[in-house]
Amino acid sequence: METRLDKGEIRKIRKKLAQRLGVIQREAKDLGIPAMIVIEGIDGSGKGTLLNRLILELDARAYDIFSTHAGDHLLHEYPLLWTVSQHTPATGKLQFFDRSAYYLVLDAWAEGKLKEKDLTAYWEDINHFERQLADNETLILKIFLTTSKNEQAKRFQKFAGNPNTAWRVTDKDWRRHRQYSAHLAQVRKMMSQTHHSFAPWKEIVTDDLDAATIELYETVIAAFEEKVNAFKVAQTVPEPPRTWVPYRGVDHLANVDLSKSISRGRYKKRLKQKQAEVYDLAHQLHALKIPVVMVYCGWDAAGKGGCIKRLLQGVDPRSFSVVPIGAPTAEELSHHYLWRFWKELPRRGKITIFDRSWYGRVLVERVEALCSNLEWKRAYQEINEMEAHLIRFGTVVIKFWLQIDPETQLERFEARQADPNKRWKITAEDWRNREKHELYEQAVNEMITETSTAHAPWTLISATCKQYARIQTLDTAIAAMKAAIKRKHLAEL
Amino acid sequence: METRLDKGEIRKIRKKLAQRLGVIQREAKDLGIPAMIVIEGIDGSGKGTLLNRLILELDARAYDIFSTHAGDHLLHEYPLLWTVSQHTPATGKLQFFDRSAYYLVLDAWAEGKLKEKDLTAYWEDINHFERQLADNETLILKIFLTTSKNEQAKRFQKFAGNPNTAWRVTDKDWRRHRQYSAHLAQVRKMMSQTHHSFAPWKEIVTDDLDAATIELYETVIAAFEEKVNAFKVAQTVPEPPRTWVPYRGVDHLANVDLSKSISRGRYKKRLKQKQAEVYDLAHQLHALKIPVVMVYCGWDAAGKGGCIKRLLQGVDPRSFSVVPIGAPTAEELSHHYLWRFWKELPRRGKITIFDRSWYGRVLVERVEALCSNLEWKRAYQEINEMEAHLIRFGTVVIKFWLQIDPETQLERFEARQADPNKRWKITAEDWRNREKHELYEQAVNEMITETSTAHAPWTLISATCKQYARIQTLDTAIAAMKAAIKRKHLAEL
Repeated sequence: METRLDKGEIRKIRKKLAQRLGVIQREAKDLGIPAMIVIEGIDGSGKGTLLNRLILELDARAYDIFSTHAGDHLLHEYPLLWTVSQHTPATGKLQFFDRSAYYLVLDAWAEGKLKEKDLTAYWEDINHFERQLADNETLILKIFLTTSKNEQAKRFQKFAGNPNTAWRVTDKDWRRHRQYSAHLAQVRKMMSQTHHSFAPWKEIVTDDLDAATIELYETVIAAFEEKVNAFKVAQTVPEPPRTWVPYRGVDHLANVDLSKSISRGRYKKRLKQKQAEVYDLAHQLHALKIPVVMVYCGWDAAGKGGCIKRLLQGVDPRSFSVVPIGAPTAEELSHHYLWRFWKELPRRGKITIFDRSWYGRVLVERVEALCSNLEWKRAYQEINEMEAHLIRFGTVVIKFWLQIDPETQLERFEARQADPNKRWKITAEDWRNREKHELYEQAVNEMITETSTAHAPWTLISATCKQYARIQTLDTAIAAMKAAIKRKHLAEL
Repeated sequence: METRLDKGEIRKIRKKLAQRLGVIQREAKDLGIPAMIVIEGIDGSGKGTLLNRLILELDARAYDIFSTHAGDHLLHEYPLLWTVSQHTPATGKLQFFDRSAYYLVLDAWAEGKLKEKDLTAYWEDINHFERQLADNETLILKIFLTTSKNEQAKRFQKFAGNPNTAWRVTDKDWRRHRQYSAHLAQVRKMMSQTHHSFAPWKEIVTDDLDAATIELYETVIAAFEEKVNAFKVAQTVPEPPRTWVPYRGVDHLANVDLSKSISRGRYKKRLKQKQAEVYDLAHQLHALKIPVVMVYCGWDAAGKGGCIKRLLQGVDPRSFSVVPIGAPTAEELSHHYLWRFWKELPRRGKITIFDRSWYGRVLVERVEALCSNLEWKRAYQEINEMEAHLIRFGTVVIKFWLQIDPETQLERFEARQADPNKRWKITAEDWRNREKHELYEQAVNEMITETSTAHAPWTLISATCKQYARIQTLDTAIAAMKAAIKRKHLAEL
């Protein structure tokens, strides 16, 4: 290549670019912009070298790196986006992904573990996920490093020739080398399906590592500059007032028959029988490696805790966890609102019970105007997308709304207040929430309309009689678990 | 058993105890007491059932459970106490361990992977770890559930008889059943070696599950009551003033020859050569699965960042991470001060670089009186114990102190202040720290005296000439890595 710059000149250019990079990255940080840069690449494309040249120019306090290894055991125990979701950057942070979900999917395809026709569904899930982050002001830049087939072979040979690095070049690498064209074609197809203005791909050819370094620096700087400018402009636009947007659709709650009840004797008998069933089913789910997510929502004092307790009474504590959801911590607030829920999702064969959930976004956060109207309106789709991703992974998603009327709630509040052992359960906030009962009703109804999907429907439970509600939630859970076990058996035929 | 209570009576007693448990647990929470309860037990001892009976009486917001599975891949990639350390409770939290490090060690012994004579070293490490937590006001209670050999067989048979639970009883379980006496003898030996007033064991025989439940409740309540009372008494004792405790021992820093330097030409040549060596060594460490911890400490502007950068320039970013240490977050402050460092420790084959470290406890926290004199004095031993645990796991621990004199520091501060690209590196705090130079000198010298151990010695680096310091740190790191590789090869002969 005659156009190659000499080493001294390259050093000067790199130094200048590195300074600009430092300046713009600090500016993004000060503005609180979360940034994620995904570096993917074919084997032998110099990913390590280039990533090093990028990060070693940055203040170590400014960034984090997460490296994805296809062989990592845990990756396959969770939905594809679980690992990525946990490493998405907080406000003002810069996160590098040294390979990411793209690699895992492409690798599975190249190894024959995934059919080509199934790839699109994964790219769609990733698109949704990235759009959600971008809507939350995250800068997303994706780099794909490629090198010519000849250069790839040369680099493999160089590794193979050093006894210390020979182990890095595996049979799989050489196999991939022979499939160079087919593999690269699939990579380009992936890029075209996942390239968006909010999360663009940039392919960099690395045959000349110095030129590639300069191109990489320039790409990253440009992405930061664009985002910083857009962010500053957006800051000048005043946010519309968070006025209440009424819901006038179907009143699902009014259709719940609150008079339902069960006698003490029948309750005891049924409870015993249902708990025995859950005991067996939990073991089957574990053996079949089916994960289960259960969401318990409902009015304060509707009896969520009691239902959860009855469900779990016979279940081995190693196979479930209960995640009570309260106000988010400072760390949680510095992330996308779904971040703290992704973290808690069950691995294969486990049951996770959410006592309150991500639906807080469209309930308390909407009613209390803790987020903008734009944010809670967009949340329905975001939540449906997340649940669809779980379901594609094989997760059973069960969602309960426990319904009581305000009079029943008042009785229970007063009873709690009178009982020294239960008084701590009642807070000033609980009383305040009662005053907003009608707004909450609208929010719940709209939530049910928007997020009751075929695979993750809401089940409304009449909870005036606590014992009745317990049996109903048990029944629903049992039916959903049985159906999932049946599906799994059929799929394995 | 003639003394068995009838079901109704048992229910009444359990309900009463459950209420007391709720009350005392909330009191501990309000006082900010961190609590950990370890539940261990032989197979078939009803651990799941009893743990469930305990936790389902508690508010789900009040506790967390961590279950240890011997088969979990990651457990074996990290030092024994790594997983435990991450789940130790924060202020006011209650953490259950459904099995813990004890189980992992005993299981490894029972499977013939660990020799009996090596057990004591593990028990010692656990003792140290628990003492550190207890010194940090953590309530520690350890329960061991046992059952008679006959009852164990009956329970295994019951599992085996149900097609849904049959998979739970494995050949290993039956093998362990045949070794019942030998296993239980080892358990009792373990308990006697790890029983302390600050972390007591309580054995509960579970042949009668209802009686065991009551005994479990009573044990937990008693532990909480004792801790709450002791905590309240301790709160009435005024803390001694945090006056400066001078150090008059060896002045290690005075012995560093600050005149050392290297010429530009020799530096360039040597750097290239050393980096090539590090490149090879990093690959060997990875292949041999040897983890490395490097600690870079030194005066502000001593050039830590530059040394780190030169070390890593040729290393694959997948095999290292740089952890810059700043002021702790609110979450970190709610834990033992070593918690945030345990989290970052390298898995097998990886290199973790700490830019500042746990030594902050005996440096900035001592000088700024951010902790009590008792706390920083005790930290030397705590740190030595943690490092010893790492070394036993096979980790290479390399510690640098970069030394410059106050005049050199002033020059560098002024140069940074004058450079618009470096000005952000200097903060008001840096200037303030200069005023306490003499106190820091004493703290550094005492730290070196107290924590320079045979396996994790401090290396003092003359850093007046930055290039000299870079070569010296590279040299030291290379020598330590080579020695570790040699040890590993010898051990495998």
